[in-house]
Amino acid sequence: MSAVDEVLERNRVYAEGFTEGGTQLATKLPLVVLTCIDARVQPSRFLGLGVGDAHVIRNAGARVTDDALRSIIISTQLLGTRECMVIHHTDCGMLTFTNDEVRAKLKAETGASADDIDFMPFTDIEASARNDIRTLRANPLLPTDLEVSAWLYDVATGRLDEVKVPD
Amino acid sequence: MSAVDEVLERNRVYAEGFTEGGTQLATKLPLVVLTCIDARVQPSRFLGLGVGDAHVIRNAGARVTDDALRSIIISTQLLGTRECMVIHHTDCGMLTFTNDEVRAKLKAETGASADDIDFMPFTDIEASARNDIRTLRANPLLPTDLEVSAWLYDVATGRLDEVKVPD
Repeated sequence: MSAVDEVLERNRVYAEGFTEGGTQLATKLPLVVLTCIDARVQPSRFLGLGVGDAHVIRNAGARVTDDALRSIIISTQLLGTRECMVIHHTDCGMLTFTNDEVRAKLKAETGASADDIDFMPFTDIEASARNDIRTLRANPLLPTDLEVSAWLYDVATGRLDEVKVPD
Repeated sequence: MSAVDEVLERNRVYAEGFTEGGTQLATKLPLVVLTCIDARVQPSRFLGLGVGDAHVIRNAGARVTDDALRSIIISTQLLGTRECMVIHHTDCGMLTFTNDEVRAKLKAETGASADDIDFMPFTDIEASARNDIRTLRANPLLPTDLEVSAWLYDVATGRLDEVKVPD
């Protein structure tokens, strides 16, 4: 059975018990979360988010990319969120490769060049989080009253701890 | 109480009952999902994903942006996923504005120009999904055996249905 068939069966069971069909577009909490694609990182579970509670953006490494900024601007300025949590996690795959390594692997396996792509790996989660938070705070298109914070989710304990970023 | 304080309290309860601390980086299913940031769209719940099951990428509109492609390349080529579901949803906020409208609103509220940002709204979910699937299928950096499919999640019923995209 394919993975798609497996999750479709799980969706059938989910839909049978679904009771939140009246939930509206606006978030219940004024919260937008940016986190990683890692399969162990499930923000709706570890933050206890119910249907409709908060926006969730996810990309490889939880990086404040131009596309993440596009989503955060839409979340805050069009849909009213005012707290933004950037959540990194322990044992992140983005700590395990360099741009040169992934470009060489892609070239060998596909023949195509990825030389113009920055895969955005990092060597220090806390330094990366601080850098990304500063990028967010400096963006002139975001609300001036947006509260931005950085966090580290521990995949071994399920626990979230703050990464302090000086103003 | 802030939204952050609220979800931190929920995380404390979650961590107390957390039992999946030994889960590894590789996904249990060979699956990567791309979906929207909408607060009613909770892929871990409506696909029944357990901790470690699948990668999840999320951006405003579930668009196949360069940043989404960065994440999908990492998921497939570095971490071994081979099925990619692009999941749009009913009542999407991206159907409610144009680039010109959001740029005018941002200019009025912040004074800053967003003229160089494409917020990627769309007027037809199915046409957008088909376009994005074609972009994925044409990318030379992805595995040739990657299975790509498009879906529509119904926020009123919790149910997922396929959006057929001709090869």
